[in-house]
Amino acid sequence: MTAYDWVEKPTLLLDESRARANIARMAEKARRSGLRFRPHFKTHQSVEIGTWFRAEGVQQITVSSVEMGQYFAAAGWDDILLAFSVNWRQRSALIALAQSVRRLGLLVESAESLDFVERLGVPVDVWLKIDVGARRTGLDWQAVEQIADLLHYPLHTARLRGLLTHAGHTYGAGDGEAVRRVYAQSVQRMNDLRWQLQQQTGQQLEVSVGDTPGCSLSEDLGDVDEIRPGNFVFYDAEQAAFGSCPPEWIAVAVACPVVACHPRDEKVVVYGGAVHLSKDFWIGQDGQRQYGWVALPEEGGWSAPLPGAYVQALSQEHGLLHVPAPLLKQIKIGDLVCVLPAHSCLTAAALGRYATLDGRWIEMMR
Amino acid sequence: MTAYDWVEKPTLLLDESRARANIARMAEKARRSGLRFRPHFKTHQSVEIGTWFRAEGVQQITVSSVEMGQYFAAAGWDDILLAFSVNWRQRSALIALAQSVRRLGLLVESAESLDFVERLGVPVDVWLKIDVGARRTGLDWQAVEQIADLLHYPLHTARLRGLLTHAGHTYGAGDGEAVRRVYAQSVQRMNDLRWQLQQQTGQQLEVSVGDTPGCSLSEDLGDVDEIRPGNFVFYDAEQAAFGSCPPEWIAVAVACPVVACHPRDEKVVVYGGAVHLSKDFWIGQDGQRQYGWVALPEEGGWSAPLPGAYVQALSQEHGLLHVPAPLLKQIKIGDLVCVLPAHSCLTAAALGRYATLDGRWIEMMR
Repeated sequence: MTAYDWVEKPTLLLDESRARANIARMAEKARRSGLRFRPHFKTHQSVEIGTWFRAEGVQQITVSSVEMGQYFAAAGWDDILLAFSVNWRQRSALIALAQSVRRLGLLVESAESLDFVERLGVPVDVWLKIDVGARRTGLDWQAVEQIADLLHYPLHTARLRGLLTHAGHTYGAGDGEAVRRVYAQSVQRMNDLRWQLQQQTGQQLEVSVGDTPGCSLSEDLGDVDEIRPGNFVFYDAEQAAFGSCPPEWIAVAVACPVVACHPRDEKVVVYGGAVHLSKDFWIGQDGQRQYGWVALPEEGGWSAPLPGAYVQALSQEHGLLHVPAPLLKQIKIGDLVCVLPAHSCLTAAALGRYATLDGRWIEMMR
Repeated sequence: MTAYDWVEKPTLLLDESRARANIARMAEKARRSGLRFRPHFKTHQSVEIGTWFRAEGVQQITVSSVEMGQYFAAAGWDDILLAFSVNWRQRSALIALAQSVRRLGLLVESAESLDFVERLGVPVDVWLKIDVGARRTGLDWQAVEQIADLLHYPLHTARLRGLLTHAGHTYGAGDGEAVRRVYAQSVQRMNDLRWQLQQQTGQQLEVSVGDTPGCSLSEDLGDVDEIRPGNFVFYDAEQAAFGSCPPEWIAVAVACPVVACHPRDEKVVVYGGAVHLSKDFWIGQDGQRQYGWVALPEEGGWSAPLPGAYVQALSQEHGLLHVPAPLLKQIKIGDLVCVLPAHSCLTAAALGRYATLDGRWIEMMR
């Protein structure tokens, strides 16, 4: 019995063999490059999927919230990096988490937060969050003096481990060549900074980088100590649209019931909206927002994306699919279509569990 | 003890008195207009908040999924309209829902779906979903012949009740005058259609309309039988930005811990991202995306929105707030700020429960 036999409403399908292949591929690249692989588990948020990483030799992970750290710590992960600037309001939970694992890494980007972490009174690794150009948050990579000041801060229970960045500006950089350029530039900037800081302070610092486009498209991962990509476990339509992966590596799709067809408008309406897919989109070559691609159920999975078809709009529960006229006759009310989401991390977080193709549930953190 | 005393992570705050006033105001407008008030409960999704509507005399409701119907039916609501084109794959659940309430309304926009509903074999009301210009889904209001054909379909257990539309193009219509024009035009089109159909078929048809901007901004709700607004119970920053309500009617805010401040960039980084707020946005007057407004905690609630401040970007867990320099000194790492979300329906669905200002939890459907 496959999931298609019983799916009644928007359901997140997971192709286990594709996800395992994605994990193996990235793990192998990290091994080949001689660097530590610390995948970001915020994409899948599942203890069971975590075991697939263990099978590839992964021993350290990245999470994005204290609760996610607790969830994976309870499943035996004991080297966890919480890659989110430390939240002072979760003091007790942070202490408890640090005490429950062998090694907890925390992110700091100010003297005040460094002081907060030291005063937790528990041994933790401190990573300084560096902005190499993404302009989300972090210490500017050129603010060497300011960063050097942090390195002089007297630490007793906390230990300064290194410099960390998320070069999120690989998203939207353009083609593969542009992504590789952004990735290489980020690594260069991190190493420039590391070298200057070591000259000034004598401290040895590790460098942690890694976003899915950069790590997928760069053959040479450069002189870094660890990578932390997350999305690659599933990839998604946006990643495929800008070349991080071929469409056949996308490991998740949302099965959505068709509720209306409007052939004159080349439009199909599905049960599957913003609360299922999230409202993330990318801008297609025609300048239109694209919330996902459209595929059809197939024996053992789903078809290649239908050429020219995409999710053009989402409201709370509705998805509007643009489907070119010649393809419309393949789709009828009551059918299921498979939406390859724009952003698999947010879609997984919205749907809360996975149905494997053979119809088994895989639970995730709630 | 207020919620601010214990909030550690992104938390949906609810100002009960504002929500109750919003409900009372819309209920009074419906009464004054002599029409049935069938509020859409997809915005709040909470049995407890439902009781606030009962207190204003509401006896019939709108929902957007079978599960939401089951949830409210279990709490005693027995006149429910499922305002989503009927999903054939939930046949058993639809029959069970119809049998558990006094009156269930279903939405149909094709002969095939009308046939499906008749074959459920249980008494239900059928509403024909009409598109009066929103171009999401539904039968084109000008396709009179096609719609008349549906009216000739022989029904035995199902009963054709009327014509229903969601004039979602009030969103983004522009100012209040433009919204009123779209609303009035929608009502006009529905009545033109009703008149022509009654001429052709002799059938009496009800008309159901209602979106929050149209119902909030139009003093004259026109010749309709019922209205179904939903968002008005909380409103949100987008509604206030285009004038559906003053900012002081917004009844929900997300309390978010500040984790970094970048004064040079006039930027504050909070714990509170796409998984908490959703990625819905509106386009501000400066052409920039706005994911919400920014306010500060205050005794008994939150301040007016900080002038010129807004949520400029969201990633999975991060919110980036633009805060003009003169206001920055009011905000420090470890503080809470209150984000008035762009779209309260999606934010409530993402966060899954409410904290009242006096620090009590209100649960919603899970």
